[in-house]
Amino acid sequence: MASKQSEQLVTLYRSWAATLDAKPDMPLDELRAMFEHLGDVTAEPRGVDYIETNAGGRPALWAVPIGCAKDRVLLCSHGGGYVVCSMYTHRKMFAHIAKSVGCRALIVDYALAPESIHPGPVNDMANAYRWLLDQGIAANHVALTGDSAGGGLAVTTLLRLRELAISLPAATMPLSPWLDMEAKGETFITNREKDAIVAREMIQGMAETFLGDGGNLQDPLANPLRGDLRNLPPTYIQVGSHETLLDDSRALADALRRADVEVKLDVYPEMQHVFHLLAGVAPEADQAIGQLAAWVRPRLGLGRS
Amino acid sequence: MASKQSEQLVTLYRSWAATLDAKPDMPLDELRAMFEHLGDVTAEPRGVDYIETNAGGRPALWAVPIGCAKDRVLLCSHGGGYVVCSMYTHRKMFAHIAKSVGCRALIVDYALAPESIHPGPVNDMANAYRWLLDQGIAANHVALTGDSAGGGLAVTTLLRLRELAISLPAATMPLSPWLDMEAKGETFITNREKDAIVAREMIQGMAETFLGDGGNLQDPLANPLRGDLRNLPPTYIQVGSHETLLDDSRALADALRRADVEVKLDVYPEMQHVFHLLAGVAPEADQAIGQLAAWVRPRLGLGRS
Repeated sequence: MASKQSEQLVTLYRSWAATLDAKPDMPLDELRAMFEHLGDVTAEPRGVDYIETNAGGRPALWAVPIGCAKDRVLLCSHGGGYVVCSMYTHRKMFAHIAKSVGCRALIVDYALAPESIHPGPVNDMANAYRWLLDQGIAANHVALTGDSAGGGLAVTTLLRLRELAISLPAATMPLSPWLDMEAKGETFITNREKDAIVAREMIQGMAETFLGDGGNLQDPLANPLRGDLRNLPPTYIQVGSHETLLDDSRALADALRRADVEVKLDVYPEMQHVFHLLAGVAPEADQAIGQLAAWVRPRLGLGRS
Repeated sequence: MASKQSEQLVTLYRSWAATLDAKPDMPLDELRAMFEHLGDVTAEPRGVDYIETNAGGRPALWAVPIGCAKDRVLLCSHGGGYVVCSMYTHRKMFAHIAKSVGCRALIVDYALAPESIHPGPVNDMANAYRWLLDQGIAANHVALTGDSAGGGLAVTTLLRLRELAISLPAATMPLSPWLDMEAKGETFITNREKDAIVAREMIQGMAETFLGDGGNLQDPLANPLRGDLRNLPPTYIQVGSHETLLDDSRALADALRRADVEVKLDVYPEMQHVFHLLAGVAPEADQAIGQLAAWVRPRLGLGRS
């Protein structure tokens, strides 16, 4: 049974879903102001410093846990449907993950749609990765991670880097990723009542905004389920069983297996979209983050924690 | 008329007041967990780095606005009745003030009551100040500031430093300060309906917790209205007109004037307790913070901003 604490995310999501239902034409700045509070549910990680920088053209936030391995980096792409949220909303969530892994996190403030449509975000992430290598960080000492739309970016960035013939990172960890621009998952229907925030119509609307007029729903750099996934690094996907986006994770795991990529998929019972936001609050989030850390540490050349 | 945005603090306070009414014996850890969300109302200042340190024995958080004068420091004591809140709850509020002033802020995580009763907090603050001087910061390049109980500390710390014969800082800026352990202000009655969070009984309960069994309500190091205020540095007090604690600010201003200390008191119409928490959200908070900056910059030897 889901923990009492995990209900905090359900409550937040349902209140926002109700607000959106009541005001379907909410102006963009109001929508963004509302979602800037997404990270309010996350506990302060404590013992982490935060330093702003510019990572290859875009603002970015270093999260530096005290005593961490500074030469190992999680490159983080936040969620928000490519339209809302920022490096600030996801500061605490990614800092919890970095603290658990024992490395730094670089949270990239990629430019959002509709101001910056596809391929803007994936190029921003690829530029941030290249900037990291320019700082002297070894490719095999970097892992990508991201949630929701940022989970999509944690895969599409790999495809873009391969196009550019840049060495790939050691691993990728999509969390509740949104991948399928065609929104074909059956879980949009089967989990419609259980998912407190993500509905198919919302995903379709964001896909349209993200891809722009005449955008291609099957462009692999936007929709990696349509891409050639061969030779991608080991991938660990985490997702909640109550998510409408659950099938996106399953489809990615299947596609990676078919492409002979090492993949691990964990589905967390009764958890909501990006339940990792409950880090430091709900045991399910802390457990999942502990599993991320245990999985990625050896892949980054770090010992067991 | 108060801005629409400023209602966010009224809403938050009233919801917490209702929770406290419904559960008067809320366990301490639950109370603290609730108040850890106090800073959720504050906007992200952006362009500020945050570095944890140990300031003379206690954890503390540097807020470092990009491009600020690093040799000028606001030493910050957060509010929370000496019982709740932390350097994290007030991170954004003090960072907004530091950014406006153009200097660093050091937010001290002084130990809380009942684990650490008076004079624990005032000694923690005095130790943090001494630590600052040991780092090479000149006394006349430091200003104290704090809100609510931390506003009290921004005055009592001066009295403690004088006892220790340590050079005093350039200025102090108490925000909605709680000073009077005897809770004698008439505004406890006249503003009872207008103040959304602070009631006399709450103040009396916190005074008891803070002072411990047999504590002296008139100890000047806890209740500076009972202290010798002569030769204190220039003081700028800001407070909301709807506060039950309004008379604390007026009493301090009167006492400072009688002691020939330079004092400025600004009362903000219709504002709630520590409305500065609305920095980046409500124009009243931003205006007040701009006034703090304009007042303190020349006192710290900085030019006009």
